[in-house]
Amino acid sequence: MSKHGWHADASEILRVGEGFRLADIDPATTPGYQGDKRRGQKDLATRVHDLDELQERLWAESRADETTDAVLLVLQAMDSAGKGGIVRHVVGGVDPQGVELAAFKAPTDEERAQDFLWRIEKRLPAPGYIGVFDRSHYEDVLIGKVRALADAAEIERRYDAINEFEARVAATGTRIIKVMLHISPQEQTERLMERLDRPDKHWKYNPGDVDERMLWPDYMDAYQRVFDRTSTDAAPWYVVPADHKWYARLAVQELLLAALKDIDPQWPVADFDVAAEKARLAAS
Amino acid sequence: MSKHGWHADASEILRVGEGFRLADIDPATTPGYQGDKRRGQKDLATRVHDLDELQERLWAESRADETTDAVLLVLQAMDSAGKGGIVRHVVGGVDPQGVELAAFKAPTDEERAQDFLWRIEKRLPAPGYIGVFDRSHYEDVLIGKVRALADAAEIERRYDAINEFEARVAATGTRIIKVMLHISPQEQTERLMERLDRPDKHWKYNPGDVDERMLWPDYMDAYQRVFDRTSTDAAPWYVVPADHKWYARLAVQELLLAALKDIDPQWPVADFDVAAEKARLAAS
Repeated sequence: MSKHGWHADASEILRVGEGFRLADIDPATTPGYQGDKRRGQKDLATRVHDLDELQERLWAESRADETTDAVLLVLQAMDSAGKGGIVRHVVGGVDPQGVELAAFKAPTDEERAQDFLWRIEKRLPAPGYIGVFDRSHYEDVLIGKVRALADAAEIERRYDAINEFEARVAATGTRIIKVMLHISPQEQTERLMERLDRPDKHWKYNPGDVDERMLWPDYMDAYQRVFDRTSTDAAPWYVVPADHKWYARLAVQELLLAALKDIDPQWPVADFDVAAEKARLAAS
Repeated sequence: MSKHGWHADASEILRVGEGFRLADIDPATTPGYQGDKRRGQKDLATRVHDLDELQERLWAESRADETTDAVLLVLQAMDSAGKGGIVRHVVGGVDPQGVELAAFKAPTDEERAQDFLWRIEKRLPAPGYIGVFDRSHYEDVLIGKVRALADAAEIERRYDAINEFEARVAATGTRIIKVMLHISPQEQTERLMERLDRPDKHWKYNPGDVDERMLWPDYMDAYQRVFDRTSTDAAPWYVVPADHKWYARLAVQELLLAALKDIDPQWPVADFDVAAEKARLAAS
């Protein structure tokens, strides 16, 4: 019996490849994982130590100027799908010093006056960091498309611009992991209703969320188009079924682990004479 | 029997007040706390939930534009005193979305061309955030004084500039908590020796640390002068004995809790019609 519940490689099984159809994915499933919520939570807690050590190694390498590697996790989803929980429970498990979070809201006037990738480029993770985008440049081809904030030709131009941009970022050593957290409309009803039921959750509720919700099929079409056009070798998409929060967290943790294992960061070798320093320290 | 080991108010007992003398503080003590490492670690884990909820309330208020309050934790210490551990084990316990970390290294040429507070001001926490400064503008009156990087008149000017700056920041609603983690030279020897003994810790060791260590008495004098000149009502200093890492973490957690309790953030009241939204959601 394996030490944990994964019986398949999450980065293979969740990856958006040739012929992928979002409509075929059931948000209530737990692909590649054998186990219930309890086991999932236990695995999450156990594997955070691996993530933690790999992140520290990566950080150490970058402090020693020995790497340009970084990780960028892009999170996209319908409202209430659990982006915040990923940030908190997965990314929150590693040393905050090595994490750069960027939450992208509707662009400001200043941002709108620039190309849509301008504000994104400024928030790319530096070497040694795990960067997390809570929403991203994909909003410009999601709500941008659904709400016709840009015309069709411009949306097409953006897919290409994104691919070129991401290829350039990946070439510098940044592992890009693009995740769509996929919930069902039924699950969203429950989660939004809970926000309405609890006064301590009212602040999380935005009447605009229901407006977007009414455009669900249009959003799913826009996501499908995003996957068709922008799931590349340099920056693949992963669709993570997210009706079970515990599974979504575990799966994203697994994707981060895979990216860090691919980097395979090593503790830097001392650039000083260890024995001489011991003597100096002892004498000081 | 109290639920936790604190028998005194950390923000009273650790505060640098009139007549404070650093030389009187024993780094191996655990003021205000009754209990050993084991109990301390348990309390740390328990009380992180309080910190977490208070931070979420503060964050919620700021999302609803209902507050300009924020918290700024300034961490200063001799090398290896445990700043990183505070960031990780205390600050790391709250939602990373509400935290802004800034690590200040030796200033760049661009920064040096400006007033010493220029780079600091840019990293102040926005409303709703807990900001953490890993080193700070105090380096400019610590290493700045000890290494005579500025003349005596300039150092004097800086104390006043700091007090004016911090008073202005506090007036906007930011609770400023300035912490010196106080270790003994003996404890530092052990910690630096451990870094030299372990290849996975070599990257944390910097031969320059021993150079600074040799100036220990000068640094203590410089800290004393900082406390005399800049522990104000608007921005008090706290000296936290730090030979016991578990105590230092617990104490800083307590100081953060006190600042958040002082803010007393409340869940924002809905600015929409809850019943109407429930009906809309159910119908959607």
